[in-house]
Amino acid sequence: MPSVALVIEFDGTDFVGWQIQDNGRSVQEEIQRALTTLYKKEIKVTGSSRTDAGVHARGLVCSAQVPFTIPAEKLPLACNAILPEDVAVVAAYDVREDFNARFDSQGKRYIYRIVHDRVRHPLLARYSYFVTGKLDVNAMKKAAPFFEGEHDFAAFCAVGGSQNTTVRRLNHVEVRSEGDGLIEIEVRGEAFLYNMVRIISGTLLYVGQGKIAPEDIPAVIDSCDRERAGKTLPPEGLTLEEVFYDWENIKQNK
Amino acid sequence: MPSVALVIEFDGTDFVGWQIQDNGRSVQEEIQRALTTLYKKEIKVTGSSRTDAGVHARGLVCSAQVPFTIPAEKLPLACNAILPEDVAVVAAYDVREDFNARFDSQGKRYIYRIVHDRVRHPLLARYSYFVTGKLDVNAMKKAAPFFEGEHDFAAFCAVGGSQNTTVRRLNHVEVRSEGDGLIEIEVRGEAFLYNMVRIISGTLLYVGQGKIAPEDIPAVIDSCDRERAGKTLPPEGLTLEEVFYDWENIKQNK
Repeated sequence: MPSVALVIEFDGTDFVGWQIQDNGRSVQEEIQRALTTLYKKEIKVTGSSRTDAGVHARGLVCSAQVPFTIPAEKLPLACNAILPEDVAVVAAYDVREDFNARFDSQGKRYIYRIVHDRVRHPLLARYSYFVTGKLDVNAMKKAAPFFEGEHDFAAFCAVGGSQNTTVRRLNHVEVRSEGDGLIEIEVRGEAFLYNMVRIISGTLLYVGQGKIAPEDIPAVIDSCDRERAGKTLPPEGLTLEEVFYDWENIKQNK
Repeated sequence: MPSVALVIEFDGTDFVGWQIQDNGRSVQEEIQRALTTLYKKEIKVTGSSRTDAGVHARGLVCSAQVPFTIPAEKLPLACNAILPEDVAVVAAYDVREDFNARFDSQGKRYIYRIVHDRVRHPLLARYSYFVTGKLDVNAMKKAAPFFEGEHDFAAFCAVGGSQNTTVRRLNHVEVRSEGDGLIEIEVRGEAFLYNMVRIISGTLLYVGQGKIAPEDIPAVIDSCDRERAGKTLPPEGLTLEEVFYDWENIKQNK
């Protein structure tokens, strides 16, 4: 059976997350419904990652086996005509038959967005977390690289994760700001624990607020103590920007 | 009685517009309700401009006479604690007693945002208008300055406007794009006709689509014929960015 990979963008505000759940609208069910309509046969998709309720995605990837080939350049428009406003297929590729968006993922890139000002901004609120009060963004910038490399991230894992190990490798952690009040925390890694990016972001916020010194981050990591890390920041600030694959060896050239 | 000026930011998606109307939620009623709660007396506000249903604002200004003075630096936070999520007071000033946000306005700056791509983008859709197909952005850039200056803009006025004259002066019309698919049409002028920015934007879009040549814009203006201009683009792409005043002579120094 032919396989396809779809790159999905969605506004997570009104979704319970990627994965099908009993308690509300999921992105996965919207994608499956669109594909089932197009292929006139029930289609199941596998996502690169679950995302929590309210988290956004610009480049979540999912894979599906399909009964016949629809040209990859036509598939996004065909899907988008069926999908609701808050989700769209932004790219599609014909891929190796055994491609699995979850297991073949080589890593992910997330951005957590914070808006720092005296007053809240309704035009930014949907895709960011608003903070007020003193914030030392340079301290946050200094703290970020301490998260890079392989560490036991047990202190940065919400209760409810079911992994065997809490050791993970982060390739890049960076805090960016152009001084206009928008702060972007970019995190790239191979795999992530439950709520890991939101807890790292909350810890970097504590650094900005003077509650943790930048050079104390290694000790917070080493403690493996959830209580020593920052709060889990709310989902609306988080966007899954990109999922990495060895596309050269996965895409089928037709 | 003391007077205050408030700078208002709102997400227009779920509003019928600025002005109080029978058919739904208006920004004006939300602001008046918040002020009435704070001052414990019914407060009426005058807006710098009406905005249509679905249009956003980053800097609409309104004025009000109030029974006593709340320090201007505290007023935004006091209002925002009462206001719903999609509207906020981002600045407040003590102003001359006779200040009127509508009559004292010296001009306004609007931006119309277009997203041009093969596929639609759910994370951009709330604050922009999506177009696909061929688009010559350079032609749009070339056409924009033809709108500058004093003209009879009868061709760019929706039916339903009630003005005596359709002559208006635009100080600046510019199309910007960094080649990433986001196109911003900025329009600055002293006063505007009903739907004028949305019709100018639709006309510039026609230029990008090759339906009107840039150098034909003066003839379209001179025709005073609504049929020769472009379509009225939808409200979600439009944001009232700023309203201009002679603040030096309006603000009260306490």
